[in-house]
Amino acid sequence: MPKPLALHDDRLFPADPGTRAIARRLYGLIRDLPIISPHGHTDPAWFSGNAHFGNPTQLLLAPDHYLYRMLYSQGIAMGDIGVGDRSGPSKADPRAAWRLFAGNFHLFRATPSWLWLNHVFVHVFGMEVALSADTADLYYDTIDAALKTDAFRPRALFDRFNIELLATTESPTDTLDHHHAIRASGWPGRVVTAYRPDPVVDPEHEDFQSALHLFAEVTGEDVHDWKGYLNAHRKRRRDFMAVGATSTDHGHITANTADLSQADAEKLFRKVLKGDFTPTEAEVFRGQLLTEMAGMSIEDGLVMQIHPGAFRNHNGQVFDRFGRDKGGDVPSRTDYIRALKPLLDRYGNDPRLSIILFTLDETTYARELAPLAGHYPVLKLGPSWWFHDSPEGMMRFREQVTETAGFYNTVGFNDDTRAFLSIPARHDVARRVDSAFLARMVAEHRLHEDDAAEVAVDLAYNLPKRAYKL
Amino acid sequence: MPKPLALHDDRLFPADPGTRAIARRLYGLIRDLPIISPHGHTDPAWFSGNAHFGNPTQLLLAPDHYLYRMLYSQGIAMGDIGVGDRSGPSKADPRAAWRLFAGNFHLFRATPSWLWLNHVFVHVFGMEVALSADTADLYYDTIDAALKTDAFRPRALFDRFNIELLATTESPTDTLDHHHAIRASGWPGRVVTAYRPDPVVDPEHEDFQSALHLFAEVTGEDVHDWKGYLNAHRKRRRDFMAVGATSTDHGHITANTADLSQADAEKLFRKVLKGDFTPTEAEVFRGQLLTEMAGMSIEDGLVMQIHPGAFRNHNGQVFDRFGRDKGGDVPSRTDYIRALKPLLDRYGNDPRLSIILFTLDETTYARELAPLAGHYPVLKLGPSWWFHDSPEGMMRFREQVTETAGFYNTVGFNDDTRAFLSIPARHDVARRVDSAFLARMVAEHRLHEDDAAEVAVDLAYNLPKRAYKL
Amino acid sequence: MPKPLALHDDRLFPADPGTRAIARRLYGLIRDLPIISPHGHTDPAWFSGNAHFGNPTQLLLAPDHYLYRMLYSQGIAMGDIGVGDRSGPSKADPRAAWRLFAGNFHLFRATPSWLWLNHVFVHVFGMEVALSADTADLYYDTIDAALKTDAFRPRALFDRFNIELLATTESPTDTLDHHHAIRASGWPGRVVTAYRPDPVVDPEHEDFQSALHLFAEVTGEDVHDWKGYLNAHRKRRRDFMAVGATSTDHGHITANTADLSQADAEKLFRKVLKGDFTPTEAEVFRGQLLTEMAGMSIEDGLVMQIHPGAFRNHNGQVFDRFGRDKGGDVPSRTDYIRALKPLLDRYGNDPRLSIILFTLDETTYARELAPLAGHYPVLKLGPSWWFHDSPEGMMRFREQVTETAGFYNTVGFNDDTRAFLSIPARHDVARRVDSAFLARMVAEHRLHEDDAAEVAVDLAYNLPKRAYKL
Repeated sequence: MPKPLALHDDRLFPADPGTRAIARRLYGLIRDLPIISPHGHTDPAWFSGNAHFGNPTQLLLAPDHYLYRMLYSQGIAMGDIGVGDRSGPSKADPRAAWRLFAGNFHLFRATPSWLWLNHVFVHVFGMEVALSADTADLYYDTIDAALKTDAFRPRALFDRFNIELLATTESPTDTLDHHHAIRASGWPGRVVTAYRPDPVVDPEHEDFQSALHLFAEVTGEDVHDWKGYLNAHRKRRRDFMAVGATSTDHGHITANTADLSQADAEKLFRKVLKGDFTPTEAEVFRGQLLTEMAGMSIEDGLVMQIHPGAFRNHNGQVFDRFGRDKGGDVPSRTDYIRALKPLLDRYGNDPRLSIILFTLDETTYARELAPLAGHYPVLKLGPSWWFHDSPEGMMRFREQVTETAGFYNTVGFNDDTRAFLSIPARHDVARRVDSAFLARMVAEHRLHEDDAAEVAVDLAYNLPKRAYKL
Repeated sequence: MPKPLALHDDRLFPADPGTRAIARRLYGLIRDLPIISPHGHTDPAWFSGNAHFGNPTQLLLAPDHYLYRMLYSQGIAMGDIGVGDRSGPSKADPRAAWRLFAGNFHLFRATPSWLWLNHVFVHVFGMEVALSADTADLYYDTIDAALKTDAFRPRALFDRFNIELLATTESPTDTLDHHHAIRASGWPGRVVTAYRPDPVVDPEHEDFQSALHLFAEVTGEDVHDWKGYLNAHRKRRRDFMAVGATSTDHGHITANTADLSQADAEKLFRKVLKGDFTPTEAEVFRGQLLTEMAGMSIEDGLVMQIHPGAFRNHNGQVFDRFGRDKGGDVPSRTDYIRALKPLLDRYGNDPRLSIILFTLDETTYARELAPLAGHYPVLKLGPSWWFHDSPEGMMRFREQVTETAGFYNTVGFNDDTRAFLSIPARHDVARRVDSAFLARMVAEHRLHEDDAAEVAVDLAYNLPKRAYKL
Repeated sequence: MPKPLALHDDRLFPADPGTRAIARRLYGLIRDLPIISPHGHTDPAWFSGNAHFGNPTQLLLAPDHYLYRMLYSQGIAMGDIGVGDRSGPSKADPRAAWRLFAGNFHLFRATPSWLWLNHVFVHVFGMEVALSADTADLYYDTIDAALKTDAFRPRALFDRFNIELLATTESPTDTLDHHHAIRASGWPGRVVTAYRPDPVVDPEHEDFQSALHLFAEVTGEDVHDWKGYLNAHRKRRRDFMAVGATSTDHGHITANTADLSQADAEKLFRKVLKGDFTPTEAEVFRGQLLTEMAGMSIEDGLVMQIHPGAFRNHNGQVFDRFGRDKGGDVPSRTDYIRALKPLLDRYGNDPRLSIILFTLDETTYARELAPLAGHYPVLKLGPSWWFHDSPEGMMRFREQVTETAGFYNTVGFNDDTRAFLSIPARHDVARRVDSAFLARMVAEHRLHEDDAAEVAVDLAYNLPKRAYKL
C-alpha cells in the first residue's frame, strides 16, 4: 500500500513547542506575500510562447541537475533518466525514465530536492501518496494529464504562484526576442532579464571567439578593439535594461578582480584576442572585466551579482559526452579578502554602486563575507547558494552572517532555478527557515517578536525589492 | 563520598521531549544490531592467541592516544601514565599511573573519551561510581580482577560485544600469521585484515628502504623494478584477500593523486629508490600510487579507503623520544577538488571501482566531499574521523553532508580504534547521534518516521556491509 | 508609542524548558562572580584621572568600531556619527549624531552590539523604553545627565561592575605614567597593563622607525643593535611587570614564527633597520620576534597572547582619511599548524612557557587549534574573538573546541574591549552562553550537573585567573 503524502504545516520549524509557536506566527505574516525572484534561469520562451510543458520526465526530471547528479552518483546512467548528450536528446522512454527515478526516490531523503519535489507534487499536482516504484505510473499519468490542460501552461502557473517579478538570465549575444515578445504581448506578468556577460568575458570559455563574433553582430561595434569592446558592453546593458534588467551577473571561478591602467588592459585584451595568453593572464582579464563592469554600473545603475567559486565540468569524461552543466560542477575554496581588493580600492565607497556577493565556500560567511559586507557600503550578501540552498545551508548562512553583517546587508532569497514549478517550494523553504531562525532569536530573548516580525517581512519581500532596485 | 555513575538511556538524544521520543524509537530499532567494524586497528594477535589482557593501565590507559594527548597537554609526563618510549616500556608503576589518570579524569569532561570510558566502565566492568582520585584503586582492583577471568579474554569479549565482523589493518610486509591462525583455529569470530601499503609507498617514511627489502622477501618479487614492485602489490593484495580483506587503506598527508605515463612513473620510481628526490617528487609518487591502487582495485575488487590530512609527528621533541603516533599528530587543511582529479579523470566513472573518502578537515564536508560523492559513482564518504569522531563531530558530518550527498553516499560508522573494549561504546555513540539527527528531521517534518527508520537501519548495518562488500 | 525595553532573565538560554532550567541553575552559580578582565583596551587614564566621561556620543557611539562599521556599511558617513578623522575631531553635533544612530538602531538586530548596548541602557542607565528615533533625545538626555554625576565616574563604575581585575594594553614606548599614578593613588581597584610590542616589532608598521627611537629613549638601550634591541624588550617587560603586567600580546597578521640562528637574526635585523627588506623578510622578522618573546617569557614568566589574522586597513580610502582601526579591518584565513612549528619545535614542551592562541578564522577551531592545545603543554586557547565574540560565535567555539581540547585548555572569557561600560554586558553574555552549552551537555546526559557546575565556575572565574597567573 502506498504511503500517504502530506506537507505538514509546521515543517522546518524547530521542534520545541514554544519556539515553534513563534515561528508559526512569523511565517503567517509572510507565507502569502508575493514572490520576488530577482535571480534565476527559467526560459523566457515559456512566457512568450506560453506553450504547454512537455511530459513529466522532460519537465521535472531530465533538466534537474540536483536529480541527475544524485542518481548518477549511485550508478544510474544519465541517458536512462532522459538526459540528452552532445549527440542529441536521450532516447529513453519518458515513462521508463520516470519509473527509474521513482524507484530511487529514497536516495533524496533529507535533501532539498525531497522537500521541493514533494511540495510540487502536493501543491501543484494534488498528489496524496508518496512517490515510489509503486506509484510511479500514477504520478506519471496524473502529471502528464495536468500538463495538457491550460491551467498548467506557463503564464497560468506564473499567476497561480503569485509571482510579482521573475528575472531570467541572458547572454550578451542573446537577441532578447522572447523578452520583447513578452512585453509586446500585453500579458501583465513581470518577467525581466539580467546581463550575464561571461561568454564574452572568459577567454578560456570554449566558445569565446565565436561569442565575440556574435557580440559584434548584435552590437555593431568593433569588439576586437578595446574601446569598441567596452562600448559593446555598454550598448547591450542598455538593451537589457530596456527589457527590465536591473542587474548583471558574473559567474567566475574566483572572486579575483584587477585594476589595470587602460593601456595595460588594452594590451592584455589584444593578447586575449590572439589566444596567446597564460591562465594567469586569463584570470587577470576576467578580474579586470569585473572592475570595468563595476564602472559601468556606476554609470547605468545596474546592480552587480558576483557568483564565484564553481569549478566547472570537474568530470572530464562526463563533460565530453554530455556537455556543460552536466559535468559535475563542484564548489571550490574561494578567497574574497584579497580577491576583491583591487575593485574595492577603486569603487568600494561609491554610493552609486551595489554589488551582491555569493559563495559556494561557507567558510567565508563569518570570516570574510560578513566582515566585508558589514563595512563596505557597496557590498551586500546574496543568500546561501546552489549546494547550500537548503534548510541546513540557509540556517548556517543566518547563524554565521547575522552577528557581523546584520539582516540589512543581506538581500532576501534568490531561487536561482530553471525548475519553474519548484519556485514556490523554494521560496517557501526560505521563508520557513528564516522564520525558524528568527523564532529562536525571539525564544532566546535576543529579539522582541515585533522586531522579528519586521525583519521577516523585510527578508521575504522588502529587501530583494530594494537590493535589486525593483 | 564518590559520585554515582550510570549511563542514562536517553544520553545524546535531543532534549526536546517530542524529538527525544522519536530518537528513542529509532534507536530502539538499531541498538541491538550486530556490530560491523570494517576499519580499525585492533591487534589480530589478541584473537589468534586469545591470551588474557594485561593490567588496567596497559589495556585502557597507556595505549590510548586520546588520553595521553590530553594529559600531556596539561603537563603530565607520558612516562608517568605508562607510555613507553624508544628506550623501552614505561617504568611507571601501573597502579600509580592509573591513580594519576583518575585524579585528572575531569580534564575529559564533555570529550568523547569521557563517553567511551564511562560506557566501558559501566557495561564492561559493572562500575557504579564515577572515576576520581578517590575511586582509583577501586577501579584498578575491579578491572584488574576481571581481566584475569576467562570472560574477559579477547574472544569472549568479541562474542559478548555482538561483533559480526572486525577488520584490522596490516602492513604489506606483514606475514598475516595471526590472521591465518585465527582462520585455522576453528573459532567462528570473523576477523579480517585490510591492506595498508603506506610503508612501501611513502619515500619519506623513515623505514621506506627497509620496508622495501621486506616487501621483496615476502613476495619474491624484484621490488626495485617498477613492474616487479607493482606485481608485489598485486600478490600481497591477493594474500590479504585470502584472509578476508575487502579493502585497502591509504593514509597520505594529502589527497593528491597523479596519473603519469608508465614510462614517467618508472623513471620517478628509480629516483625514489635512489633516495634522490624532492618533496614534490615524493608527493607525486604517492599520488601515482593511489592511481595504481585504483587500477588494481578495478582488477581485484578491493574497496579503497583514503584517509588524508594527518600531519604526523608535529612535536619533534616528543617524536624523537617516544616515536610514531605519540608525536602530536594534528589535522591539516586538505584539498580534494584538485587533488583527486587525476585519479578521477582516469577511473572516476568505472562501475568496478569504489573509493571511500575520509577527512580531518571539516570545511570540506559541504564544500568538496558531499558535492564529489553526490556526483561520482566511484566515491562514497567515510564517517567523521579521529578528531571528529565525537557527538558534535558526527552531527556536523550529517548536517553538512546529507543535503548534497544524501545518506546513501555514506557508509555507516567506522570505529577506527585499537581500543578494543571501547568498540561497543563507539558504535553506540554513532547510533545515538544518527538517531538524534534523524529524529530532528522527523520532528521538523522533513522526513516521515518510517523513512527515517529505514535510514537508521541502513546507517547502522546495511550500508557498511554494502560499501565494504562484506 | 515607544516600545518597552527589558532584559529577560532567561535571555540566551535554550528554549527547551528542561534545558533552560538547567542553564538557569548553572548561571545562578556564576552570575555574581567578580569580573576578571585579563585582556582589553580600556584607557588607563580613566582610572588614574577618574574624570567624568564626555557626552553619550563621545562615550558610547563614536569610539565603538562595531557601531560605525555597520552604520557605514549602510551608507552613513562616519563623520556624521562623531568619528573623527586625520584632520581632527568630528564636527558633528553630538546630539544629531546620536539621533542618526538611534534612527538606525534596527540595523543591529540580532548582533552582539544589540545585546551589549541594551544591557548598558538598562543596567547602567536604567532605560525602560527601546532606543529608536522617537526616544533618541530621551536617551541622550538621560545618559548625558548621568555621566555628569559622580556615580558614573570611572572608578565608581569599576566598583559597581564588580571588577576584580582589569588589564589594559600598552605599547613598549608607553611611559606607563597612568598605571603608576593608579598605584600611587591608593585606590584599591586592580588595573594592570600588558606588553604589546607590535609597533617596534613590525617593520611594515608606518611608525616603526619613530617607535624605535622612542623605544631607545625610554629604555636607554642602543636599540639599533640586535643585543641592545633585545635588552630593551627585557627592560620594558620588567617595567610592565612592575605595574602588574602578567602577559604580553602580539597582533601579527599571521601566526608565522621563525627560529633563526642569532647570527641570521642579527643580519635580518640590520636589513630591517635600513628599511631594505622584502615583505617575506618582514614576515620572518616578526616571526623571529615571537620566538624571542617566548624565550623571554621563559625567563620572566609573562604569558604570551597571540592574536593573529587581522588584515588591517582593508579599505584604503577610508584608512587614508580616518586612520588606523577605522579602515575596515577584516579577518584573514590563518594557518597555525605550520606557522607555529618553529617556535614549538624550540619551546613547545617547556613547562615555564604559556601561550594563549586566538583566531579570526573559525575553521581552525576543530582542525588546528583544539588539536594543538589538546597536545602541547605550552598552548591554551583564548575565547572566541572580535568578529566571533558573540553568542553564536561563542557557541561555535565551545562546540568545535571542547571535544578535542576539553574545557581546561581554554582560559575563560576576555572582553577585549575599549567600551568600558559594556564590560559587564560582555561577561554576562559569555557566562550565559557557557551556561547554555553546559546545560545542553547535562540535558543530553553527557555530563552530570555537578560536573557542569564545577566547569561553569572554572570558566567564569578560575581559569582566567590561572591562565593569566593572576
